[in-house]
Amino acid sequence: MDTSDKLEEIFRNFPGIGPRQAKRFVYHLLTKSQNELSEFSTLLTQLKSTVFICPSCFRFHTQKYALDQSGLCSICRDQNRNHRQLMIVARDIDVGALEKSRAYSGRYFVLGGTVPILDNDPASKIRQKELLQLLTDKEFDEIIIATSINPESEHTATYILSLLKKHYENSKLPKVTTPGRGLSTGTELEYSDADTLRSALENRR
Amino acid sequence: MDTSDKLEEIFRNFPGIGPRQAKRFVYHLLTKSQNELSEFSTLLTQLKSTVFICPSCFRFHTQKYALDQSGLCSICRDQNRNHRQLMIVARDIDVGALEKSRAYSGRYFVLGGTVPILDNDPASKIRQKELLQLLTDKEFDEIIIATSINPESEHTATYILSLLKKHYENSKLPKVTTPGRGLSTGTELEYSDADTLRSALENRR
Amino acid sequence: MDTSDKLEEIFRNFPGIGPRQAKRFVYHLLTKSQNELSEFSTLLTQLKSTVFICPSCFRFHTQKYALDQSGLCSICRDQNRNHRQLMIVARDIDVGALEKSRAYSGRYFVLGGTVPILDNDPASKIRQKELLQLLTDKEFDEIIIATSINPESEHTATYILSLLKKHYENSKLPKVTTPGRGLSTGTELEYSDADTLRSALENRR
Amino acid sequence: MDTSDKLEEIFRNFPGIGPRQAKRFVYHLLTKSQNELSEFSTLLTQLKSTVFICPSCFRFHTQKYALDQSGLCSICRDQNRNHRQLMIVARDIDVGALEKSRAYSGRYFVLGGTVPILDNDPASKIRQKELLQLLTDKEFDEIIIATSINPESEHTATYILSLLKKHYENSKLPKVTTPGRGLSTGTELEYSDADTLRSALENRR
Repeated sequence: MDTSDKLEEIFRNFPGIGPRQAKRFVYHLLTKSQNELSEFSTLLTQLKSTVFICPSCFRFHTQKYALDQSGLCSICRDQNRNHRQLMIVARDIDVGALEKSRAYSGRYFVLGGTVPILDNDPASKIRQKELLQLLTDKEFDEIIIATSINPESEHTATYILSLLKKHYENSKLPKVTTPGRGLSTGTELEYSDADTLRSALENRR
Repeated sequence: MDTSDKLEEIFRNFPGIGPRQAKRFVYHLLTKSQNELSEFSTLLTQLKSTVFICPSCFRFHTQKYALDQSGLCSICRDQNRNHRQLMIVARDIDVGALEKSRAYSGRYFVLGGTVPILDNDPASKIRQKELLQLLTDKEFDEIIIATSINPESEHTATYILSLLKKHYENSKLPKVTTPGRGLSTGTELEYSDADTLRSALENRR
Repeated sequence: MDTSDKLEEIFRNFPGIGPRQAKRFVYHLLTKSQNELSEFSTLLTQLKSTVFICPSCFRFHTQKYALDQSGLCSICRDQNRNHRQLMIVARDIDVGALEKSRAYSGRYFVLGGTVPILDNDPASKIRQKELLQLLTDKEFDEIIIATSINPESEHTATYILSLLKKHYENSKLPKVTTPGRGLSTGTELEYSDADTLRSALENRR
Repeated sequence: MDTSDKLEEIFRNFPGIGPRQAKRFVYHLLTKSQNELSEFSTLLTQLKSTVFICPSCFRFHTQKYALDQSGLCSICRDQNRNHRQLMIVARDIDVGALEKSRAYSGRYFVLGGTVPILDNDPASKIRQKELLQLLTDKEFDEIIIATSINPESEHTATYILSLLKKHYENSKLPKVTTPGRGLSTGTELEYSDADTLRSALENRR
């Protein structure tokens, strides 16, 4: 395999990219100057030294926010946020969506994945050890398990709930919540499933 | 215009049907026997004499439920339902979805449409007179305005709310609610808009 | 089953219509006046008496064109067309598309269907007997087998070709052709399959 | 802008990639090891030194084929191909599709782009100078202008034809052809435009 084939293979592993688009990416790079490719190349090698994983919430963050030696991200260091409220999410990109909504001002914990249904080794699919350590180190008034609404994500939420119950077996379980279900933007009543309609009516106000 | 052109035109006015599909419908009918077409024809002329509009909720219902002389539909006659709870919906088909969800056991009122934004004559787009008559005739503890989540439907909900406020100006306004917003089945956190995330967090539990 | 259920069932058998749209069609009809439904009903019963099958090409045609007693359609009666050129198509709607293109001025024969691959009784799926009768009655210089480009349609073309060979076993087989393959409007070279590219290059000019 | 923002920006310029997917690409890279990123980085800097532009057809090719000092690609060096037949295509990726079809055994010339309709400076959008140089240097029996079937591509074909006519003003214009139009795989007669049907009938055989 030559250089362009190897690059094609790397692009094929990018999320959502098939063989044809991987090939187009290589052709796209071939139209760039050597200077542009060198800059791209340098950025790639720098990426890991400029992006850090926050040791508390485990989301990626960039050095510019790390004013102190703790290595904590801007959210975990923000004293104006509610540090007794924890939201557990599957991925970094979920934190992005939630921060953009300005609807939440507590802390986060990024699981780094979801647990497939019938998986034999769920602890290896998510940051289970790190989550339990955080729950040991800090006290929380409320833990929000915030996952997408599909079978694997809901299974992950159930698994996290069982972890929490076990962890707090001999102590007081904080309030555990999940985001409300209901009609979302664009929902047509006519095409809504019974689960969604039921939740929407229960949450009416 | 001959018979087949006229039929094509009728099919073009069916919801969601364009010119090409209208033409295919006519070709489809041409492959049917005269007997089949006669049966179809008879059903069409019978339709209005076997389907009635309930004088209370204004949804369509079929004669088989009308055991008494009131003309009321099976829902409006059902003494096990909560007749002090009213849900206002845009269309018959919304009642169908809600009944299938088994999440609601009060009464309905079918507006028969929605009010376009900036419409000059909203009263003509929905059953406004009939709604106000019902509110005069009956007492309700709760009125649920249940519309889809899109600009015209939400505008309709706002218009209905203003009607209610005016109608109950000199009397006690019943509790007025709308279905809860939040994550619906299939929602990905990552792709959710701020409105939906905010509602989902407010409705968490 | 009451009238509206029966109508819903009829609509479910319309081409491309699922259960939800069938229900919407019935609700659509319920919003029509009795007069409108009666007109629709009358058109349905009249359809078969105003639309005829041409005894020569077997396409549907409307009475207004039938000035003589032959019952022939306007195309089959048109003396300006080339009656020694025959195009065999699967459906009426194909004749419509071809006439609109003004690219053809011969006669047609409508098979009324296609022959599924591995079908045990191909003769029952198309107007085989009628086609063979036409080939016996008339002489042709060219027969064009014009089908869509998908496995079942191409199988039908192959089947028709074998019928022609057998029919003309002891006489001169007219020139038999199929429409040229190549790049069609909107085709991207990059996404074209090998068959299409090969035909396009063979047919270059 | 930090490293991850800059990478996101680079990915946004990849063909077919929007802001959301660009962000996902960066998150994807963050899950890779430093070793994997270094390898990716190295491949990028090597790309231009392992991929060459053929000085004759101007398509990209990889060093492994360049056995001689000419720098010519494997197609241009292949003595079994017809070097008096030239196919002019817009992009490298078109050569890939055509080679895969095994329908063509002449030479290629890659324009490197298309000429937008109403463009003021068409010569700058394609390798016009290089094409004219090739036409001066070599003799051809046939020139095939092979573009996709959409307005900009067909405009480019017309522009190339005018270039050819001017270039061969005082000498014999080789045979100039374009790939045949007609029904392509998946085409339904019913949905075909008049242009395609007309070409399909003209190219029938």
